[in-house]
Amino acid sequence: MIYLTRRERFSAAHRMFRPGLSDEDNLKIYGKCSNPNWHGHNYVLKVTVRGEIDPDTGYFMNATRLKEIINERVIEKLDHRNMNTETDFMAGKIATTENLAVAVWDELKSPLEAEGVTLHCVRIEETENNFIEYYG
Amino acid sequence: MIYLTRRERFSAAHRMFRPGLSDEDNLKIYGKCSNPNWHGHNYVLKVTVRGEIDPDTGYFMNATRLKEIINERVIEKLDHRNMNTETDFMAGKIATTENLAVAVWDELKSPLEAEGVTLHCVRIEETENNFIEYYG
Amino acid sequence: MIYLTRRERFSAAHRMFRPGLSDEDNLKIYGKCSNPNWHGHNYVLKVTVRGEIDPDTGYFMNATRLKEIINERVIEKLDHRNMNTETDFMAGKIATTENLAVAVWDELKSPLEAEGVTLHCVRIEETENNFIEYYG
Amino acid sequence: MIYLTRRERFSAAHRMFRPGLSDEDNLKIYGKCSNPNWHGHNYVLKVTVRGEIDPDTGYFMNATRLKEIINERVIEKLDHRNMNTETDFMAGKIATTENLAVAVWDELKSPLEAEGVTLHCVRIEETENNFIEYYG
Amino acid sequence: MIYLTRRERFSAAHRMFRPGLSDEDNLKIYGKCSNPNWHGHNYVLKVTVRGEIDPDTGYFMNATRLKEIINERVIEKLDHRNMNTETDFMAGKIATTENLAVAVWDELKSPLEAEGVTLHCVRIEETENNFIEYYG
Amino acid sequence: MIYLTRRERFSAAHRMFRPGLSDEDNLKIYGKCSNPNWHGHNYVLKVTVRGEIDPDTGYFMNATRLKEIINERVIEKLDHRNMNTETDFMAGKIATTENLAVAVWDELKSPLEAEGVTLHCVRIEETENNFIEYYG
Repeated sequence: MIYLTRRERFSAAHRMFRPGLSDEDNLKIYGKCSNPNWHGHNYVLKVTVRGEIDPDTGYFMNATRLKEIINERVIEKLDHRNMNTETDFMAGKIATTENLAVAVWDELKSPLEAEGVTLHCVRIEETENNFIEYYG
Repeated sequence: MIYLTRRERFSAAHRMFRPGLSDEDNLKIYGKCSNPNWHGHNYVLKVTVRGEIDPDTGYFMNATRLKEIINERVIEKLDHRNMNTETDFMAGKIATTENLAVAVWDELKSPLEAEGVTLHCVRIEETENNFIEYYG
Repeated sequence: MIYLTRRERFSAAHRMFRPGLSDEDNLKIYGKCSNPNWHGHNYVLKVTVRGEIDPDTGYFMNATRLKEIINERVIEKLDHRNMNTETDFMAGKIATTENLAVAVWDELKSPLEAEGVTLHCVRIEETENNFIEYYG
Repeated sequence: MIYLTRRERFSAAHRMFRPGLSDEDNLKIYGKCSNPNWHGHNYVLKVTVRGEIDPDTGYFMNATRLKEIINERVIEKLDHRNMNTETDFMAGKIATTENLAVAVWDELKSPLEAEGVTLHCVRIEETENNFIEYYG
Repeated sequence: MIYLTRRERFSAAHRMFRPGLSDEDNLKIYGKCSNPNWHGHNYVLKVTVRGEIDPDTGYFMNATRLKEIINERVIEKLDHRNMNTETDFMAGKIATTENLAVAVWDELKSPLEAEGVTLHCVRIEETENNFIEYYG
Repeated sequence: MIYLTRRERFSAAHRMFRPGLSDEDNLKIYGKCSNPNWHGHNYVLKVTVRGEIDPDTGYFMNATRLKEIINERVIEKLDHRNMNTETDFMAGKIATTENLAVAVWDELKSPLEAEGVTLHCVRIEETENNFIEYYG
């Protein structure tokens, strides 16, 4: 069993808030991250897949194909976007990095299985000091 | 003459567009950076000051004081903010990194001179692949 | 189950030596790290906690609260300190990164449980080329 | 149980191709990585070992000894070398990062056991965007 | 006057040697970098241009256009290539980073002037510990 | 004219204080950096030299020779040392990064001139957020 990780980046706007609560109440829960006028980040996404090496190629998955799947399913929907209002797979969800990691997992799991590999970890770094990992 | 650089970070939303132009025309000039729904970045700001070492202290400026000035004048107005609508010193300006670097220079020049040092360079890194430097 | 990691930094002096041994014997075991006149590092600390996402907030732990706990319990006792002589939780211990990681774990475990999350990993990077991980 | 990771670097040339296939067929499988004229990388190698802390020393393995073993067994055979034609432990293998990680594991496992520690992970970073991990 | 820097990367094989000298004599001058079997690096290229901000756009040059020029003129000729045998602008030159920086400058100067900006600096990082800068 | 920069690292203990002042007065000037029990850093040193490319070799200075000079003159006197009490070229000087940069310049200027190159810049990074540059 071997693990391959691909790093991609996206720059997005977001706001953390619970619909139905006032801006004041959201401020209490989420602090400055609840700013109604939005803020944003350069997110770093690391996707890890696992599988067995094919002895014929020495590969278990082509890194270029992994990059394509991540870009089609995830990056194009997030990069230079507003995560709260424009990203279909975040609709109706609070835009925390925790929820984002789970949503990215759900987007990638099936397309990667169709390539014959297993999704192992989705890691999202919001700043150089904070990151989230989800293993399904 | 010696140079001291302080690195600070801020996470902000922005949009590049020229008022009076349609979204379509702005898209032609600024590409995906003109998205009307905003996007954002983790910006890295590096402020360089220069001066002569004080032989009594071995310092020419206390790095903690430099940090305070940058935070009061710049970071608090940009971090977890919308640069286009919330940052007073960007009002009426197109929110490019070039304009931002000049505006940050104008904010910092006088307060730093009041400390007896000279502002030498404002550097703003928008992503790991792009940065702007302004020397006045 | 989701994992949140917070990165903090501290700059400390230390020396590795076994009390009761001569400086010469300590030099044989610890090399230049046993220098009786001290040396120091910019340590990077990464604390990982795990838990379940609260569907109401999209969080499982507020990253700001995690930062506060790490700072109160660990960083304030190490940053700009001599680890051997000033850090209470290192008293009587040899100041290796291994022992430091276990001691930081012991400091953080209970306060994090009191927040309803589980401490998963303490990682301490002594230089860009060496790091220690402890999982309890 | 505690984990120690050592980071080393090597710069090597390589080419991915299957003997017996034409350059055109190799190009279909490996893309530009199959260039018959070679290309190269600054590889980053991270070797993780695990063990119990010796209460007498506060160590479980001296990081300098770990560095020596990695250099003797791996770095000297790869750094400023052509991995396909000059590295004995890659002879007859397709020069993918996957195969390289397994080969490095096989080189290091016994010498590390002879030191009383267990090899836990070999991680090889080919670029800042791709890395492979192998746990045996 | 404002400065914009774009960072790009390429992975190439090379060998430093003077034609007409024996491998032994080249080894004396260039050390392990003269290995006749090649080695390679992940090079980082930073291209800095300078100009005046256009008050209509807030730009002085579109970063995407800068990226295109660097890729067409430089990266496509170096990435996943053998710099000594495949890169036209290095033909007949010793493949040192110094010569490479000057050659990249010569490739970029005119196309950038045609865009109305001035090439200011070409910086090439061969490893994390060595880099060359050329200002024309 | 071309510029070559070499990056080296050292880990040292230090304390900022003015002899003749009380610990309380030193605390007012230098803050926690005046801790009488020492603290320390992983310093990063970048030394830039300039010269003309030798058309015979494509070099203007061998990077390995530059590394040797920096190590003999500077790193061996600072790494795993107490800068205040053990480093000869810091004797009688307040251990600020400013004074350290000037002292390193004075150590390197003549030996580099003896190699036929000119010392251009000494840069010392104390943390990831602060650095000093000195150009003589």
